[in-house]
Amino acid sequence: MSELKGACIIGQSGGPTAVINASAQGAIEAALASPHITSVYGAAYGIKGVLAEQLYDMSKEDPAELAILKYTPSSALGSCRYKLANPDVDDTDYKRILEVFKKYDVRYFFYNGGNDSMDTCNKISKYMQKSGWECRVMGIPKTIDNDLFGTDHCPGFSSAAKFIATTCMEVHRDAHVYDTGMVTVIEIMGRHAGWLTAAAKVACASGYGPDLIYLPEVSFDMDKFLADVQRIYEKKGKCLVAVSEGIHYADGRFVSEAEVSATDGFGHAQLGGLAALLADIVKNKTGAKVRGIELSLLQRCASHCASNTDIEESYLTGKTAVEAAVSGSTDKMVAYDCTRKNGVYTCVTTLLDLASVANTEKKVPLDWITPEGNFLTDDVDAYILPLIQGEPERPLVNSLPRFAQLKKVLV
Amino acid sequence: MSELKGACIIGQSGGPTAVINASAQGAIEAALASPHITSVYGAAYGIKGVLAEQLYDMSKEDPAELAILKYTPSSALGSCRYKLANPDVDDTDYKRILEVFKKYDVRYFFYNGGNDSMDTCNKISKYMQKSGWECRVMGIPKTIDNDLFGTDHCPGFSSAAKFIATTCMEVHRDAHVYDTGMVTVIEIMGRHAGWLTAAAKVACASGYGPDLIYLPEVSFDMDKFLADVQRIYEKKGKCLVAVSEGIHYADGRFVSEAEVSATDGFGHAQLGGLAALLADIVKNKTGAKVRGIELSLLQRCASHCASNTDIEESYLTGKTAVEAAVSGSTDKMVAYDCTRKNGVYTCVTTLLDLASVANTEKKVPLDWITPEGNFLTDDVDAYILPLIQGEPERPLVNSLPRFAQLKKVLV
Repeated sequence: MSELKGACIIGQSGGPTAVINASAQGAIEAALASPHITSVYGAAYGIKGVLAEQLYDMSKEDPAELAILKYTPSSALGSCRYKLANPDVDDTDYKRILEVFKKYDVRYFFYNGGNDSMDTCNKISKYMQKSGWECRVMGIPKTIDNDLFGTDHCPGFSSAAKFIATTCMEVHRDAHVYDTGMVTVIEIMGRHAGWLTAAAKVACASGYGPDLIYLPEVSFDMDKFLADVQRIYEKKGKCLVAVSEGIHYADGRFVSEAEVSATDGFGHAQLGGLAALLADIVKNKTGAKVRGIELSLLQRCASHCASNTDIEESYLTGKTAVEAAVSGSTDKMVAYDCTRKNGVYTCVTTLLDLASVANTEKKVPLDWITPEGNFLTDDVDAYILPLIQGEPERPLVNSLPRFAQLKKVLV
Repeated sequence: MSELKGACIIGQSGGPTAVINASAQGAIEAALASPHITSVYGAAYGIKGVLAEQLYDMSKEDPAELAILKYTPSSALGSCRYKLANPDVDDTDYKRILEVFKKYDVRYFFYNGGNDSMDTCNKISKYMQKSGWECRVMGIPKTIDNDLFGTDHCPGFSSAAKFIATTCMEVHRDAHVYDTGMVTVIEIMGRHAGWLTAAAKVACASGYGPDLIYLPEVSFDMDKFLADVQRIYEKKGKCLVAVSEGIHYADGRFVSEAEVSATDGFGHAQLGGLAALLADIVKNKTGAKVRGIELSLLQRCASHCASNTDIEESYLTGKTAVEAAVSGSTDKMVAYDCTRKNGVYTCVTTLLDLASVANTEKKVPLDWITPEGNFLTDDVDAYILPLIQGEPERPLVNSLPRFAQLKKVLV
């Protein structure tokens, strides 16, 4: 493979995670250390920073601050949700990116994100090839949704899973404190894939897990749900339900949207989410005391409850992307290849073709969902448990988190 | 003071906290160790367990399990919200309690709770005195609301405060990740006292705190609130608001109730709380993208983010209650007497008359609230910071919490 010398740009995209900056740290540190990379630029707000020529000179950062990016949640460089057009239809953005790449002699582009970001990577790479500008493009995965194709799991998922399992255990204790009846519904992120909601199952081994778990992989039946809740409530006096925000009826309508429009003409869909809605329906049907809890942003930014396995693996994806590109790879996404045998977990990085990853969603296997569609098998525990191991040695000031303070010096 | 030998009952009452069991542990261990206490009973579900004669024999518990009560959130013995009648009007419950106390030779009664529980303690003590049954009654404080009179702070508050400050910092990062506008409203518990919401102020020192903070100690003005948000949003493109669930208009109406009934005839008050409601109002007024986040039960059960200072102090309140009672005290609540001088924090326990504590609410001093009523002074930091220090060495299994497993052997 030919040697390629030049600058690199590192960008972050899509919804943030608790450990997205661990990947950035891995990439930045590896790039700063590489003799082939002449300058290391961070893009402000992902690809938007490239288009706007807002690039930070990462060599100006204090290495000690870069070192605690691992423990700093939510994209330190800024993120965006910007989908590039099909270049055959509109190549304005691509021309501009090429212009910026040429101006700064950018020969390496590392983009950290989910499905859409891998699509962005792929499109940029193809355009550069067509234009004759040699530039190696690598995708670094990231998404709490865990829905990227071809990788055992996604950086960011494991820490969110750990927060969800921990919180389910704590809420279970709280929701069982009185001898009076109570139905508690916990709403968990995941519009199309139920991985995050599945993490609630991991709490069950302790005896403090949900009684019922509903994933978007199978259709939701309100009557069956109410019967499930009623049965458990009558037996135990309590019922804890974990539900994905993306549960939908057989006809595809999201329960959150369908029920709100059916019962409320004032368009109050934004007033409380699915948890509150389901709790309300349960209350009206059973008369039980209810509580709906939406984990909201907390599940994706709770770095205080991160998995150290996730942090170190995420760091590795960034580092691997840079090292692989310098060695000649391009058009790849870094992925995890894992084994779980006899209680021993191994994880190595591997490279996948970007084209095979972009815009493909990986869902929870249907045979991990019980036939009744309201609980999960122990396959979930075997899959998730190794991922949530380890407590980070995060820096604290006054017992509160100490986040990295970047100078963000514009070029 | 005369020596008194007999059994003791320990009960937990009211809403649980992350560290309520640390106080139970302190009381149980001290009682088991005391030569004056012949049997140590735990009341199932607080005073309801006394009335129903549902008492656990705490000597049957494994000391190793008792030892991790410190790290186990939410009342291990079960709790209740049961208000005793005025004994002059209806003494049925009191007669029954006396009957049970006599049957089990209960000479010590320790009750762990908030305002109402101190009232319960006080009433029971008075009745026992009137009946001639010698029984020493001690209140052990507990409430995340921090509104108990006469004590520097309340066990449980500090851990909730730490979770709130930590979470505000993490959510701040998440809510600032895009270069597009965003208004985020975080709803925090505290119906009448704003202590918990004040804890959000502590996040500000890091640069990741709320822009605006609204407490129930002062009246809320919706127009002024919207102007505050608009001003900051226009300047920064973002606005993070911390708001107490108990904010109210000048006429006393809770904002949550007043606004819902004004805009929605369908009684959807339970569909989402105040955060969602305010976010919706901001959205309609400013057009900004908004998000409402209700911290819900998480703020009172998140033992994974507890303050070790809170754990050890809570343990001490339980231990002190037993030791003081054995030494002759009765009709007292254990309180904290603290100093904060030149950055040095000290905390010793003291005893207050139950009668002086019961049914009196302590609120955030008005001069800690800025004249505009939308932020707090640094007095808050000086008060709260010492309380949230220290990370607990909590036991884990598979990187998830390991809670105490009590046998709960009924007598």
